[in-house]
Amino acid sequence: MTIVVGYVSTKEGEAALERALEECRLRKNTLVVIHSDRGGSGLSGDAARKNDDDLKKVQARIADAGIEGEVRGLVRGKEPAEDLIDVAEETDADLIIIGLRRRTPVGKLILGSNAQRVLLDAPCAVLAVKAR
Amino acid sequence: MTIVVGYVSTKEGEAALERALEECRLRKNTLVVIHSDRGGSGLSGDAARKNDDDLKKVQARIADAGIEGEVRGLVRGKEPAEDLIDVAEETDADLIIIGLRRRTPVGKLILGSNAQRVLLDAPCAVLAVKAR
Repeated sequence: MTIVVGYVSTKEGEAALERALEECRLRKNTLVVIHSDRGGSGLSGDAARKNDDDLKKVQARIADAGIEGEVRGLVRGKEPAEDLIDVAEETDADLIIIGLRRRTPVGKLILGSNAQRVLLDAPCAVLAVKAR
Repeated sequence: MTIVVGYVSTKEGEAALERALEECRLRKNTLVVIHSDRGGSGLSGDAARKNDDDLKKVQARIADAGIEGEVRGLVRGKEPAEDLIDVAEETDADLIIIGLRRRTPVGKLILGSNAQRVLLDAPCAVLAVKAR
């Protein structure tokens, strides 16, 4: 069984990764970490190098946790939701984990479009976590 | 630790309950099943009796599964999302589980307002499951 987690280097992304490591320990699952970037002219060389460094650190954390897993940095011009769903289908995932931003007291009542899309179109259950 | 699940007698509600029973077994958690009804003139005597019967069956399933848990039928004039979040806060829940409808091929891209509200305002992680 596989858990797919969407990772970005924010506190929500960290919360999702931490939870994914815990769930993999509990369920003895394999972890697939996805970092999705649309790429193109919006992605500078510096940003691409930082992404690579971040993902190497994630790889090291998976190894340190003694979990079987892999990290995929996807730059295919797709929305993060599409990349997550594609990989969940490909790996026949049991669970997708995503980080959600906490709503501020005056925050709007609408979830981001990527989160909604993952929730609606995922082939499996979706666990939504927030930063502590 | 407690898992709170929103139950309705639909295939999505059943999927949420089934998953909640599995997660309680895996995590050794206590289960709190919430059935929320706004009540008022929209709730007929027949419907209220059917709700009671459904919840007694759920109680029996929890007992059969050997899980510690309780069933609460809430009729407090609140939206299901409010009831779920209130109980999650009160029980210091570790996880809320909700059922989501599957999108049809021509389905709209917007999640229901109750699901969005639970996802945005839950004090803990939210697991969204679909019917098989």
